[in-house]
Amino acid sequence: MKAHEDWMRLALDLAGAATGQTSPNPMVGAVVVKNGKMVGMGSHLKAGTEHAEVHAINMAGREAEGSTIYVTLEPCNHTGRTPPCTDKLIAAGVRRVVIGTTDPDENVQGRGIARLREAGIEVIEGVLAAECQALNEAYFFHRRTGKPFVTLKTAMTLDGKIATVTGDSRWITGEAAREHVHVMRHRHDAILVGIRTVLCDDPRLTARLVPGGNHPVRVILDSHLQTPLDAAITKVDEAPTWIFTTDARDREREQLLLAKGVRVISTGAAPQVDLEKMLDILGKEGILSLMIEGGGTVNAAFLRQGLVQKVVAFIAPKLLGGQDSPTSFEGENPSLMQSSLSLRDVRVAQFDQDICVTGYLHA
Amino acid sequence: MKAHEDWMRLALDLAGAATGQTSPNPMVGAVVVKNGKMVGMGSHLKAGTEHAEVHAINMAGREAEGSTIYVTLEPCNHTGRTPPCTDKLIAAGVRRVVIGTTDPDENVQGRGIARLREAGIEVIEGVLAAECQALNEAYFFHRRTGKPFVTLKTAMTLDGKIATVTGDSRWITGEAAREHVHVMRHRHDAILVGIRTVLCDDPRLTARLVPGGNHPVRVILDSHLQTPLDAAITKVDEAPTWIFTTDARDREREQLLLAKGVRVISTGAAPQVDLEKMLDILGKEGILSLMIEGGGTVNAAFLRQGLVQKVVAFIAPKLLGGQDSPTSFEGENPSLMQSSLSLRDVRVAQFDQDICVTGYLHA
Repeated sequence: MKAHEDWMRLALDLAGAATGQTSPNPMVGAVVVKNGKMVGMGSHLKAGTEHAEVHAINMAGREAEGSTIYVTLEPCNHTGRTPPCTDKLIAAGVRRVVIGTTDPDENVQGRGIARLREAGIEVIEGVLAAECQALNEAYFFHRRTGKPFVTLKTAMTLDGKIATVTGDSRWITGEAAREHVHVMRHRHDAILVGIRTVLCDDPRLTARLVPGGNHPVRVILDSHLQTPLDAAITKVDEAPTWIFTTDARDREREQLLLAKGVRVISTGAAPQVDLEKMLDILGKEGILSLMIEGGGTVNAAFLRQGLVQKVVAFIAPKLLGGQDSPTSFEGENPSLMQSSLSLRDVRVAQFDQDICVTGYLHA
Repeated sequence: MKAHEDWMRLALDLAGAATGQTSPNPMVGAVVVKNGKMVGMGSHLKAGTEHAEVHAINMAGREAEGSTIYVTLEPCNHTGRTPPCTDKLIAAGVRRVVIGTTDPDENVQGRGIARLREAGIEVIEGVLAAECQALNEAYFFHRRTGKPFVTLKTAMTLDGKIATVTGDSRWITGEAAREHVHVMRHRHDAILVGIRTVLCDDPRLTARLVPGGNHPVRVILDSHLQTPLDAAITKVDEAPTWIFTTDARDREREQLLLAKGVRVISTGAAPQVDLEKMLDILGKEGILSLMIEGGGTVNAAFLRQGLVQKVVAFIAPKLLGGQDSPTSFEGENPSLMQSSLSLRDVRVAQFDQDICVTGYLHA
């Protein structure tokens, strides 16, 4: 006889299998169990299509009657692009619903659970709650703050350099790490670089190595609108491009960029783009997750303002040297080591010879 | 029935148990086996005392006759501070000797093996040879080159900073990592810092956290002899201090330092200490292993001249920032990422939240 946690872990695995393909919806997994045996399973695969519970109940068919369903996120009780899941569970005669975590979305927030209980269904809440929330960390953060969950990604040598003094950075990490960065892009709604990166590297910022991957929105920080009209990121048939700028922008270039299909959004007064305002705008536009792939100055601006939730640092086992070689976090010079920002929940992974350190900032 | 490799691995473990206490001798382990059973074991514990083979044969007693002995390093055939091990093995009636690797010392170099074979003993060579050499990497390097094996140790934040712009570096890593650095010091014959570290931090550079640990020789790079007379490293009752300098040294201070028992050694013309010459001198003085705990400039000098064999980098999961915060490898600015120095045989370990990356440079 498996414990609730065992079935919930399976539901989590089913949910995670759809990583990167459900946004703006959360990933959700469901397992239907009757007499100790699994009779149905499901995962939410794509926004606008059936929720995980519906797939699982459909698979169970008549076996759903009197069953227990494990679902990583509270079932919805409202009609969105699909009908309420609670109705489906009630109609199928489910006896018990075991839930990982409540849904923080303003349309749910416990109403799904209340509806099930009104219908006489037993509801158990909070099984592997932390894991179920971590699976959808961006979704939870967005619903709580209105802003996208921000991940800062960087790649450096073992002596902390992200490029040479002339800007050469090809390549710091090996193929496996670089391929994983494309997987990460695929899992984010948007990626951000500064204008310097556009001017130096002219990157495409697409998730080109992942077959069938979503192309995240390309967000450029460009206070004065210096993006060249032939920059790779202006080809909006590959992926959308949104340039955030200020009132000091070049108005003529703005018209030309708009004509190419690029979005140009000003956050107001110069000299810098207002990052908080930008994140609020992105949040309202349905961007749940943003990956920063900037240089040391862009990274410093986000970090110093406390706008980064997660850091993913790839470290290549090589030494570059150079007293002026740029590092991943520049900006103002702190005088005390104690003023450094500590990461929590640190994990270490390896991609061939490269090391990947992941951790979280702020709660 | 255990294979040769299994017994040799046990001998390697016995040898490694004496890490840090055998210099200038290598670590050696030995296991005596008769009829598939271990009848003796030994490890070389301290220079001037019995070799591993002698301990193992003594433990075996009369069982040594007709036995096989596994020894990680070729037995010696000369009288040093102890009699030749080959004589001991022959006298004990050992039937077979299985050897990890030949001894590169000019007094041995295959003569031990030849002597055993002359006495009619079967000798098998090269079992786990790579592991047996790696165990004594400093010893092998010293015997081959005449120079100490140089390990560069550094500790940095996840954004590559080794201190703030004002020189504050307390603390980057946590207790577990810092304690391990003391273990590392204990395992080295000498540790080196530049004069800037002496002037900024006034470190003691002892292995104070390890009970009964050897205090390595403290080597200071000090071209003009600026070491203050009250610097902690001038207290030579704690550990020997050797200052390497140039002909541009302050002669008056030299006399005062010599009077305190500090050794002052010039490598010749200014402006810089000749590092190769210094390493040759250290090698001749019986320093097999040197750990560099310098800043970015000292590290760059050794790295650029190809004088570093091993790198041990501790990375704390915290972000400091600062465009002028020093990094572990400074000096000249390379223009191409391809000119970085790649590490091989990279290993990753963790000390609580801190990450330790180890790798080798050059062959």
